[in-house]
Amino acid sequence: MEYLTGVKKNETMEISQLLAESTPGDRVKVHGVVHTIRDLGTVAFVILRKREGLLQCVWESGKGEVNRKEIREAASVEVTGILEKNPKAPEGIEIRMETVRVLSTPADGQMPLPIAKWKLNTSLEAKLNYRSISLRNIRERARFRLQEGLTRAFRDYLYGQGFTEIHTPKIGARSAEGGANVFKLEYFHRPAILQQSPQFYKQMMVGVFERVFETAPVFRAEKHNTKRHLNEYTSLDFEMGFIDGFEDLMAMETGYLQYAMKLLKQKYEKELDILEISLPDVSRIPAVRFDDIKKQVSQTYGRQIRNPFDLEPEEEQLIGRYAKEAWGSDFVFVTHYPSKKRPFYAMDDPEDPRYTLSFDLLYNGMEITTGGQRIHEYDRLLQKMESRGMTGEGMEQYLLTFRHGMPPHGGIGIGLERFTMMLTGEDNVRETTLFPRDLSRLEP
Amino acid sequence: MEYLTGVKKNETMEISQLLAESTPGDRVKVHGVVHTIRDLGTVAFVILRKREGLLQCVWESGKGEVNRKEIREAASVEVTGILEKNPKAPEGIEIRMETVRVLSTPADGQMPLPIAKWKLNTSLEAKLNYRSISLRNIRERARFRLQEGLTRAFRDYLYGQGFTEIHTPKIGARSAEGGANVFKLEYFHRPAILQQSPQFYKQMMVGVFERVFETAPVFRAEKHNTKRHLNEYTSLDFEMGFIDGFEDLMAMETGYLQYAMKLLKQKYEKELDILEISLPDVSRIPAVRFDDIKKQVSQTYGRQIRNPFDLEPEEEQLIGRYAKEAWGSDFVFVTHYPSKKRPFYAMDDPEDPRYTLSFDLLYNGMEITTGGQRIHEYDRLLQKMESRGMTGEGMEQYLLTFRHGMPPHGGIGIGLERFTMMLTGEDNVRETTLFPRDLSRLEP
Repeated sequence: MEYLTGVKKNETMEISQLLAESTPGDRVKVHGVVHTIRDLGTVAFVILRKREGLLQCVWESGKGEVNRKEIREAASVEVTGILEKNPKAPEGIEIRMETVRVLSTPADGQMPLPIAKWKLNTSLEAKLNYRSISLRNIRERARFRLQEGLTRAFRDYLYGQGFTEIHTPKIGARSAEGGANVFKLEYFHRPAILQQSPQFYKQMMVGVFERVFETAPVFRAEKHNTKRHLNEYTSLDFEMGFIDGFEDLMAMETGYLQYAMKLLKQKYEKELDILEISLPDVSRIPAVRFDDIKKQVSQTYGRQIRNPFDLEPEEEQLIGRYAKEAWGSDFVFVTHYPSKKRPFYAMDDPEDPRYTLSFDLLYNGMEITTGGQRIHEYDRLLQKMESRGMTGEGMEQYLLTFRHGMPPHGGIGIGLERFTMMLTGEDNVRETTLFPRDLSRLEP
Repeated sequence: MEYLTGVKKNETMEISQLLAESTPGDRVKVHGVVHTIRDLGTVAFVILRKREGLLQCVWESGKGEVNRKEIREAASVEVTGILEKNPKAPEGIEIRMETVRVLSTPADGQMPLPIAKWKLNTSLEAKLNYRSISLRNIRERARFRLQEGLTRAFRDYLYGQGFTEIHTPKIGARSAEGGANVFKLEYFHRPAILQQSPQFYKQMMVGVFERVFETAPVFRAEKHNTKRHLNEYTSLDFEMGFIDGFEDLMAMETGYLQYAMKLLKQKYEKELDILEISLPDVSRIPAVRFDDIKKQVSQTYGRQIRNPFDLEPEEEQLIGRYAKEAWGSDFVFVTHYPSKKRPFYAMDDPEDPRYTLSFDLLYNGMEITTGGQRIHEYDRLLQKMESRGMTGEGMEQYLLTFRHGMPPHGGIGIGLERFTMMLTGEDNVRETTLFPRDLSRLEP
């Protein structure tokens, strides 16, 4: 029997440790994967890929005990050597190799994609087909570090605002909300579906925890084949009770965005540099009515309004453009969406029930959030359902929750991959999805 | 157009604010749900349920402007009044009501379960059938706050250890690993499955980020109907590269447990008090070999070994008992599980390939973690698969990853609901699952 007492400090050092704890001339030990080798005959630059970035190691013929032939691209190695400054090397440091221990050798060091290039100019198709390889490229993987930052900020900020994190089931019975766009499966000889949103559950939990959030996958069996749709994505959802109006939801999301940008700046500066991203200003975000901004962009950009009750993607882009030109903002809340375009649980505007107390958030003209106040009174909920010809079948527990009292409440859902796409300036949401699921893609 | 600039401080106060920022005699405003009313005729104690706990409000006939009849159980209200000390009230404070504003009235204030009782002595079946109601009970909901703490600690600790959070797809193509225990669905006219673990994906991402974790649902179509199995649960998974051995994984998990207990003590003291939980000592966790401890408990407790290559639940309980009696520990790592009981990717022990470099973590005799070192060399992986009669069908991308080089690595998966069950001393995992999915339960 032995005791485990926790993590001991590693002998091998990370890049940040080399920079903070070592000085030139020190003998250090590091591990990493051989990202690429620049071989000049009697000298070779061996670039290690580490989790924090790239690290240059230098082999010189006749120096140290390193057998140059042992060092192959894609091998995992442990290197000891002397740390030196070198302004031309990544992070301004390099290691003069003394010994190398090969931990793992690839069966095939010839990568199917040129991952060692700074920019991986390969087709999206190829990148997705070889996902575990293409992401070994420094720039490709950096996007997912920023995605981590967005998720992490969401949770940290909401913990601080008194929210409770919940885990709601993804397999469920059929419900009225779903319609045709749900994936169906068999659950021990019973028909079941994959949840397309945690909506009902998070509302039910508002009656328990008052403020809840979830960061989890959602599933949409939509037959869209666009650059901005996925059939499975990560949804950052919150729902909060005791709101005075849907403005409280927009304020909470603005607070999150401010916190997220601060966190990215503090903890993900390296990735922002790698991708040359300057963070958007979220100190204030304009909010405009759906009908007003629709007219405004129609006038400003001379585009005819085809459907007064819906926004086409091109209109969203123009609204984004207008927000930038008129208010200098990359973000804009569009409020009071038409009732017929919102689900039954959306609260209608008492001043004009054709519209709802709801909103979308556009980021450079792309919808990344849908939110709004929900109906909290049982009788009104039943009325609204009736007016839409819905029955309560499969929604018994949801309705029961309202029957026994619910505070005024509302919430939002953010599409994480889309948000990351806009932040990183990509034009296809698959670029910011580790393993996308779309009409044609079920693997890897 | 208006600007959103973030969250403004609420006029209404939370319990922690009342305790920290107010003094007796202050006029304060709070909101909450009327949890219960104790009516003494000319005086009534109105207990509000707030997200941080219970708050006593006092109505007195003839004082203030409150219409007593307006106040109903399960109503959402906003109360103003004078804060006073009262050692008999929750948190030692109460509010003498001056005004009340009813924000929402229940259609039916008669709860289907007696949620205002301190202990909800209702059958598990009834609690699950009325999940959104039963969790309104203070003790019932407290368990899920602790569950939040365990998840939060997992992420926070691993961020600090250089891990990257990933989101891997839950819908996938059929793979060899799955076997019979996977849920099947139709994905745009193609056969698909729900992932029973992020195993392949997190290994593939070790080649990219070196250290990764995920906290997400997994799906098991197992026909178990026990107190400790669920068909959908939340898995806390990590995988890390450049390990020296599987001991590094146990050390990392021990570090997590230490961090988690510290976080619970710091931020979830209220819930620990409500549930009368004293946290386990995780300063050191014993690790014992599978074959040794099996013999040990057989001798100590006189139980015959039926199958030398497997642990029965009763044996796990005895191991837990032994760890407590011999080493004073609620936790024990059991190492070197037999190869035939581990998946193909488990690394066999070079000293005795009948066993693997893997482990389970038992908590009071219940398995809450499975982990181990994985095979990282392509050729050995193929050999192991061949020896088990497996083909690489559906695993092309997984195998390709190894073909192009992978560091030595391993990881673990923790069952969140089970861990919470053991921490809270429950004997059924459904007690610590918001909305359990089992053989018979697909709703709510």
